[in-house]
Amino acid sequence: MNEQAAGSDFAILNCRVLQACTAGSANTMTVTAPKTIEINGGMITEIHDRPTTTARTELDAGGRIAMPGLINSHCHSAMTLFRGAAEDVTAETWFNDYVWPFEVNLEPHDVYLGTLLACIEMLLAGVTTVADHYFYVDQVAKAVEQSGIRANLGPTFFSSQGKASRDHSFELAEAIHGTAGGRITASIAPHAPYTCTDEDLAASAEAAQRLGVRVHLHAAETIDQTESSLASRGVSPIKVLEDTGILDAGVLIGHGCGILNDDLEVLQKFAGQVGVAHCPKTYLKHAMHVLTPIGGLQAIGAAVGVGTDGPASCNSLDLFENTRLMALTQKQIKRDATQMNTSEALSILTEGGARVVGLGEQCGRLEVGRRADIAIVDLSGAHNQPVHDELAALVYSARSSDVYATIVDGKVVALDGQVPGVDVDGLIKEMKQRLPKLLDLSHGRRIQTYDP
Amino acid sequence: MNEQAAGSDFAILNCRVLQACTAGSANTMTVTAPKTIEINGGMITEIHDRPTTTARTELDAGGRIAMPGLINSHCHSAMTLFRGAAEDVTAETWFNDYVWPFEVNLEPHDVYLGTLLACIEMLLAGVTTVADHYFYVDQVAKAVEQSGIRANLGPTFFSSQGKASRDHSFELAEAIHGTAGGRITASIAPHAPYTCTDEDLAASAEAAQRLGVRVHLHAAETIDQTESSLASRGVSPIKVLEDTGILDAGVLIGHGCGILNDDLEVLQKFAGQVGVAHCPKTYLKHAMHVLTPIGGLQAIGAAVGVGTDGPASCNSLDLFENTRLMALTQKQIKRDATQMNTSEALSILTEGGARVVGLGEQCGRLEVGRRADIAIVDLSGAHNQPVHDELAALVYSARSSDVYATIVDGKVVALDGQVPGVDVDGLIKEMKQRLPKLLDLSHGRRIQTYDP
Repeated sequence: MNEQAAGSDFAILNCRVLQACTAGSANTMTVTAPKTIEINGGMITEIHDRPTTTARTELDAGGRIAMPGLINSHCHSAMTLFRGAAEDVTAETWFNDYVWPFEVNLEPHDVYLGTLLACIEMLLAGVTTVADHYFYVDQVAKAVEQSGIRANLGPTFFSSQGKASRDHSFELAEAIHGTAGGRITASIAPHAPYTCTDEDLAASAEAAQRLGVRVHLHAAETIDQTESSLASRGVSPIKVLEDTGILDAGVLIGHGCGILNDDLEVLQKFAGQVGVAHCPKTYLKHAMHVLTPIGGLQAIGAAVGVGTDGPASCNSLDLFENTRLMALTQKQIKRDATQMNTSEALSILTEGGARVVGLGEQCGRLEVGRRADIAIVDLSGAHNQPVHDELAALVYSARSSDVYATIVDGKVVALDGQVPGVDVDGLIKEMKQRLPKLLDLSHGRRIQTYDP
Repeated sequence: MNEQAAGSDFAILNCRVLQACTAGSANTMTVTAPKTIEINGGMITEIHDRPTTTARTELDAGGRIAMPGLINSHCHSAMTLFRGAAEDVTAETWFNDYVWPFEVNLEPHDVYLGTLLACIEMLLAGVTTVADHYFYVDQVAKAVEQSGIRANLGPTFFSSQGKASRDHSFELAEAIHGTAGGRITASIAPHAPYTCTDEDLAASAEAAQRLGVRVHLHAAETIDQTESSLASRGVSPIKVLEDTGILDAGVLIGHGCGILNDDLEVLQKFAGQVGVAHCPKTYLKHAMHVLTPIGGLQAIGAAVGVGTDGPASCNSLDLFENTRLMALTQKQIKRDATQMNTSEALSILTEGGARVVGLGEQCGRLEVGRRADIAIVDLSGAHNQPVHDELAALVYSARSSDVYATIVDGKVVALDGQVPGVDVDGLIKEMKQRLPKLLDLSHGRRIQTYDP
């Protein structure tokens, strides 16, 4: 019996592990023979070949695949409240006639309910970490804490709300950072360069530096936004981030589809602290033809992760789907089917995502010393069989419903289609009672106007 | 008690029905209040509002949505055998170095096993009809009959196999047409204009006319194929189909991404008997940037359906996924998020698919007089909730795993994740024993060379 393993808190037996073939080589992944993962204090302490353990509790994975927990690198979780409520409309209509008017109606408890439902959906789908950007962050944090997911939370603000609102947002970030046993980290979260003044962006950078966190915002979301910025003020949104100190503070950029080649040169200077979240389903749904320059960002050493964006545009919070869409669209854009191979796609989903959300050392790989954030995926379904290539199965045929178990910080937070300890039916019932109020547009207002 | 309903064979109670709002209006779909569907002799005989039935057997749908069974308008089902075995390669490599060499190894029983697995996957995913194009069609038919799915089967041939092979293919089509209690219909199935001579295409058209069936083939699969045809022989693949009598006989065209505007004029003359299967996942995976001209085909009155293509390219046989990809890519291509709305996407999946596979009068809608081919979809999962818009849920958040029951010809062929009467584990076990032989490339041959 191995000393280190004796008396582990928890062990996962008989799991085949998705790993990078060699340390540091992110783009060549493989699935091992069955192994045992020992976990202590929420951390992976040993991965070994023995089929037994002395751990106090154990989970037999039955030969299924253990992969690093999926990381949703950009989301507005509470918007499950508006799932399917703004369909087949332009981005302008989506913002100005639906979503931003809807959000006038939000009360704090709505945000709690919407976020909790999102967390349940994500945990059932193997997601162990979400980078969230939304209002009423204390309610978001409450749902995160209850559900057991790991999260980086950014309290959204617009400059139109005034300086007090901005400063309150900074205070909220400080208050939640490090809570939920360390599962919650914070970001400073101005909405975007087109809705926040340079002064507020600079204050955000300063607050992030002061708190030792990063900035999470939308920038260069579309090529149209970049062109608009160039026309109106002569600089790109990315240059604005440099000029206001955001890049220096470290940043999670939502989307970045409008990042230009010139911007890549700017970003290169800060590449170690820049991450970009790529959310392809939303881009296609909004008819965008220019997508995040993933290859260019990787070439300069910036991190790229996969995200869903909010469920009012993406409809579901499904990272299997978005990873697949990323690989498919990258092949198409480059007119080369050999591009974005399955290893690379899975590496972006896991290691890339961890770097993007500021957890590059803690998450994203299943190896000793990292947090035990694990998705156990069952490939036995008819739609995955036979399995000639596990990586191809994970990228191209596996569904979120194939997730057998999700583990965060060494705790089983979803198992066999259930999230223990959460009354999902009661939650949905309570939410439904609040929907008419949420969709009421009779007030004729919106929280902000989209005019980038 | 209604006379017509009394003593029905089978009734589905408490189902909300996906229907076109008005007869003939395909593009405005809606979901009704809970209804009862009465079924006799495999046909829908009444849809009523009473919550009770006198049917001999009944299924309580629990308020779930009953939609027309999904129609896979182009597939090579048996290629589940090669799922994931040719990844991240160009189309040329895919054909010449993997799939066509693999297919040298096929024995009839392999095709039976591969097709049966595909049928199970599809039935679990709400697919009630598949248009299949493959070798050893007697084995395909055996699997179809056993599984309970409805199918249009085309026995594939290449001209390189010789005239006897072609004529045998015609005989096989004749032999299977109308079998399995009418669930199997046949098509004449030359592979493609670039692998079959004009003489064989003309003979195919003639055989189809003689048997009263249609032709199912690949044509203008890519814009490159069309350009190659124009360069080498001065006419497009679609013009070849006209010149050889294929369009006049009636045809199911796989893909048609290389259909030109000039071709639409040709096709318009035969629009009532032309269907095109659109399989977007395969197109993106093969890095194709020009996709089926869906709008143009609809404008001339040709039918368009959704297909998966074979699982060696598509990896899964998932029509929820392919319908979603169709809607997303059409919005992107047209740079207009209002295009391909949810009604239209669902209409193409159901009515469009039925027309494409030659069952436009029998399937594709849930209404009296049509076959009782039904998918019952459960939207209660966290990833679909709350449901503001059922059509959006079906197109953008529902998964194949949300299918609760699949009914073909009034018979429940899949229920709650199980296909009654099929030993899936035994099937997969038997298949796995045969895989090393199937992937053996030591023979150095291929069934055909890809050089369109």
